[in-house]
Amino acid sequence: MADTVLFEFLHTEMVAELWAHDPDPGPGGQKMSLSVLEGMGFRVGQALGERLPRETLAFREELDVLKFLCKDLWVAVFQKQMDSLRTNHQGTYVLQDNSFPLLLPMASGLQYLEEAPKFLAFTCGLLRGALCTLGIESVVTASVAALPVCKFQVVIPKS
Amino acid sequence: MADTVLFEFLHTEMVAELWAHDPDPGPGGQKMSLSVLEGMGFRVGQALGERLPRETLAFREELDVLKFLCKDLWVAVFQKQMDSLRTNHQGTYVLQDNSFPLLLPMASGLQYLEEAPKFLAFTCGLLRGALCTLGIESVVTASVAALPVCKFQVVIPKS
Repeated sequence: MADTVLFEFLHTEMVAELWAHDPDPGPGGQKMSLSVLEGMGFRVGQALGERLPRETLAFREELDVLKFLCKDLWVAVFQKQMDSLRTNHQGTYVLQDNSFPLLLPMASGLQYLEEAPKFLAFTCGLLRGALCTLGIESVVTASVAALPVCKFQVVIPKS
Repeated sequence: MADTVLFEFLHTEMVAELWAHDPDPGPGGQKMSLSVLEGMGFRVGQALGERLPRETLAFREELDVLKFLCKDLWVAVFQKQMDSLRTNHQGTYVLQDNSFPLLLPMASGLQYLEEAPKFLAFTCGLLRGALCTLGIESVVTASVAALPVCKFQVVIPKS
């Protein structure tokens, strides 16, 4: 019953708390809170990554890892799969969720668009942390063109 | 798979974050962080309470409500039931969890006992918030005699 929404409630509270007590509500302060949220997401993603079934650690192809995140990780956290995954086959992946659960409480459309980044930072960290545990360093950003559609861009630098 | 531990990971990060950035690490600062955590728990408890099946809102006896928290709410949040519930039949209830999940990561015994309060504040708030949604004002405190056993005391003032 309620357990499926527990994470979403807790996430909402974390965001509210960080913004309420932010010592500097200006652009710099917001940047700090976003970074704190991203860091929390990263460590939770790492911890979740360590809990993954052993066989997933044998992934050899980057694309397999990304597919795994879109399916299994997303279901574990959000009870749904990512809606699409695209790649340029050069280390850049775009993961699209057409109704991202953490954005759903906001009205659809454009009017709350500027509020969106604080509801995405934790999840960017979550993806980066899970990838890190699976042995892949990455840069993860998110963008929203119209609520509640969300695109996560994962860039994996070639070593 | 990983979804059952998501709440615990997130809770750990919240506690760590609040203590890391606490402007005053002394007794006063700790008190503020505890109060922040309790408040977050309260609002999550309220929100969970609103999600409860309609029939539970028809509870008439206080004891029924407390039993509901020990069983359904605890399973929803911690995937286990509370181990015992006692009452003096005068508005005081003691809910005991013999292996409270948020204390399990700490070693058993006495050595980390002073760290325990920060892992209990959120859950005290959670109980208070769920009770509030069910129409019962209460004061909830927690105590630990030996990890990971935890007692939550719910006092319901007679109006």
